[in-house]
Amino acid sequence: MFELIQTDKETKARRGRLTTAHGVIETPIFMPVGTQGTVKTLHPDDLLDLGSQIILGNTYHLNLRPGLDVIRAAKGLHQFSTWDKPILTDSGGFQVWSLAKLRKISEEGVQFANHLDGSKMMLSPETSMEIQATLGSDIAMLFDECPPYPCEEKYAADSLALTTRWAKRCKEWHEENASKIVPWMTEPSLLGESPMPQPRQLAFGIVQGSSYAELREQSAKELIEIGFDGYAVGGISVGEPEHEMIRAIDNAVPHLPADKPRYAMGLGTPPQMLEMIARGVDMFDCVMPTRVARHGLAFTEDGPIHIKNKEFEFDQRPLTEYTHPSVARFSRSYIRHLWRAKEMLALRLLSFHNLHFYLRLMQQSREAIEAGTFAEFKDAFITRYNSHKEQ
Amino acid sequence: MFELIQTDKETKARRGRLTTAHGVIETPIFMPVGTQGTVKTLHPDDLLDLGSQIILGNTYHLNLRPGLDVIRAAKGLHQFSTWDKPILTDSGGFQVWSLAKLRKISEEGVQFANHLDGSKMMLSPETSMEIQATLGSDIAMLFDECPPYPCEEKYAADSLALTTRWAKRCKEWHEENASKIVPWMTEPSLLGESPMPQPRQLAFGIVQGSSYAELREQSAKELIEIGFDGYAVGGISVGEPEHEMIRAIDNAVPHLPADKPRYAMGLGTPPQMLEMIARGVDMFDCVMPTRVARHGLAFTEDGPIHIKNKEFEFDQRPLTEYTHPSVARFSRSYIRHLWRAKEMLALRLLSFHNLHFYLRLMQQSREAIEAGTFAEFKDAFITRYNSHKEQ
Repeated sequence: MFELIQTDKETKARRGRLTTAHGVIETPIFMPVGTQGTVKTLHPDDLLDLGSQIILGNTYHLNLRPGLDVIRAAKGLHQFSTWDKPILTDSGGFQVWSLAKLRKISEEGVQFANHLDGSKMMLSPETSMEIQATLGSDIAMLFDECPPYPCEEKYAADSLALTTRWAKRCKEWHEENASKIVPWMTEPSLLGESPMPQPRQLAFGIVQGSSYAELREQSAKELIEIGFDGYAVGGISVGEPEHEMIRAIDNAVPHLPADKPRYAMGLGTPPQMLEMIARGVDMFDCVMPTRVARHGLAFTEDGPIHIKNKEFEFDQRPLTEYTHPSVARFSRSYIRHLWRAKEMLALRLLSFHNLHFYLRLMQQSREAIEAGTFAEFKDAFITRYNSHKEQ
Repeated sequence: MFELIQTDKETKARRGRLTTAHGVIETPIFMPVGTQGTVKTLHPDDLLDLGSQIILGNTYHLNLRPGLDVIRAAKGLHQFSTWDKPILTDSGGFQVWSLAKLRKISEEGVQFANHLDGSKMMLSPETSMEIQATLGSDIAMLFDECPPYPCEEKYAADSLALTTRWAKRCKEWHEENASKIVPWMTEPSLLGESPMPQPRQLAFGIVQGSSYAELREQSAKELIEIGFDGYAVGGISVGEPEHEMIRAIDNAVPHLPADKPRYAMGLGTPPQMLEMIARGVDMFDCVMPTRVARHGLAFTEDGPIHIKNKEFEFDQRPLTEYTHPSVARFSRSYIRHLWRAKEMLALRLLSFHNLHFYLRLMQQSREAIEAGTFAEFKDAFITRYNSHKEQ
C-alpha cells in the first residue's frame, strides 16, 4: 500500500506513493485541514483546482457537531461533504488536550467536558476508532495521550506506556470491527464502478515520548511491534521551540520502517516542512495556511506579507508570481480593499492562495527529489524565505 | 442600443436586448449587487457560472473605500474587480439618504457626514457623474433626491423639481466630460481586440414623485425631454407597503418610451419582480438574495426556507431540485451543519443558490414571454410560492 519510489542521496528526503480506498497520494504531501467537514472558506471544487490529494477531518469536532447520526444518514464523511478523494481523520486525542475542559485520564480513556456546551463525554481507544470508522476516513489515527511541553521524564514515560496499551486496543478494535462499520466497506458501491484500490481503512500509529530520545525509540518499536499502516510523530507543535520539534523528529524517524509513510502532525511553516522532508517525513497537516489567511497574511517566496499594509494600496501585482490563476487575476490593491471592507472574498482568496503555496511547495519538493536537487532547492528556498526577516 | 424584441399579448411583459460597452444583456434581467466591488462571498467566476450578465456597483461606497485614486490606478472598476461584463453604477443618492448622517440638501447637491468615519463630503450631480465615469461603469445613473415614505405632496413636488434640475446638470456634465474620463473610452484597448459594441457610457434617468400619479407622470415627461438611454423608477423599496410600490410603477411606466429599458430600483421578492415584469419593467437589482443568504435563508419554489431549522437535520435533498450543480451536490443536512458550525461556506453556498434562483426566474420569464405563456407562468409561480404561507 505504500511504495517507496526514490530516496534522495544527500538528505533523507523521499518520494513515495500511498494507496487508499479513495485513491493514490504522492508523497511528500500536505493535507489541508477540514476541521468541521469543510476546509474553511473553500468549496470542494476549489480543493480539486488546487490539486489537493487528501484532506483531514476532525474526529472530536465532527462527533460533537453534526454528530454521528447525521454522518451515518449521509453514509459517511465523503458523501456528506461531497469529497471523493482520500480523507485522514485524527483520533481526537489532540483536541481533548487542547480544547476540552475538566479532562480526567484513566486506563479506560479520557472523560471531559466538551468546548461547545460543556457536556460530559468519553473518548477511549474503542470509541475513537468507532467514530473514525463511522466517518469512513481512508486513514484512521490511533487514540493517544498527547503530553504537554515541557514534560517530566516520569510523566512522559507513563504517558507513553498508556499510549502503547491504547494502541493495542485500537488495533484490536479496528481489525475486529472497522469492516462492519466503514460505510464504503459495507456498501462498496459508494466508491463507484471502479474496483477499490485499497479495500480497507488504513490505521496509523502515533509515536510519543516528548523530548526524550529513549522514549521516542521505545514508542516507535512498540508501535511497530503492534503493526500499523503508517507512523506519525505526535506531541509536537504543542508550543515547544523549533529545535525541540526537529529533535523529536530526529529521535523518532530513524526507528521507523522505510516502507511505511511517516507523518509529522500539525506542522508547520514552509521552512519547517522542508527541514522535515530532509529528515524523511512524508506527510504534513496544518491549519496555518488557512488560519493565517483569516488574519490577512499571504505566504510568498520572500516570507509572509500582511495584505492590510498601506504599501499594497496601489500595488497592481498578484500576491505572488506563481499563485493559482484563480487568485493571480486579482491585484494586491484589490485584495487589500476586500480585506479592509471586511469582504469574505478576501479570506477566501487568501486561503486559496496559501494552500496553493503549501501544495506547490510539496510538488516542488517531489520534483526536486526526483531530479536529485532537493538539498539545493531546500537551502535556496529557506534562504530567500528568511532573508525578508533580516532586512 | 435597446432593441425591443417582443411584447407579451396578455400582459405588458417584454423581452429586449440592451447593448453596452462590455456586451449585450437580455431583459428582463436581474443585476446582482456588488456594493464594494464584489458580490458578497462570491468570486467573479461564480457569477459567470451563474450566467450573470451584469452586476451593480455602488458609487457612494466605492468612492469612500477604496477611493478613486485606487480605482484610477487600476484603470477602472472592471479591471480592479476583474469583471469583464457590464456594470451599472448607482448615483449614490439612495445611500446618502439611507446611510449618511447630517444630510444638508441644497441646490448645489448634498453635504453629509459619511457612515465610515463621519468626514464631511459633498455629492452633487457633477461629482456623482464624475465618480461614475472614473469607475467606468457601462451604465451611470443620474444623481437624484430620494424622498422618504410617506411624503407630503408639497415636499414630493419640490423634491421632484430639484431632481429634474439635477438631471439636466447630470446630462450636461456627462455629455461634456464622460468620454474624457471613462477609462475604456480613453484607453479603448482595455476592451480587448474586438470592436466595442457600444462605445460610450450610457446614462439612465430616475423617475421620482413619491405616491403621486401626476408627479410621476410629470417626472417621466421632464426626463424624456432631457433624454436618457433608459429610465428607472426610484423612490420605491423605501419602506412603503407593497401596493404602494406597485402603484408607483403603474403611475410611472405608462409614461416611459417603449424603446428604452425600464429599471425598478432595489426590488424585490420573486413575486414582486414577476408583478413588475407584467407591468413592463425590464431590469431589477436587489441585495435581498445575498443578504438573506447571510441570515440562513434559501429561496425555493415553495417560498423561502431557513436552513438552520431542525427539520433539515437529516434531509438528504438539495436546497431545490433545479439549483445549480455546484450547490445541488450538497444536502440540506450538510448545509445546515455548515451554518450551525459558522462555516463561511454556508454563506457562500446560500448566496450562490439564491442568486441562481433569481437569475433562473428571469430566464424562465424571458422564455415564457417568448412562448406567449408569461401570464400563466407568473400566476402558477406566485400561487405555489405563496401557498407555503397559507398552510
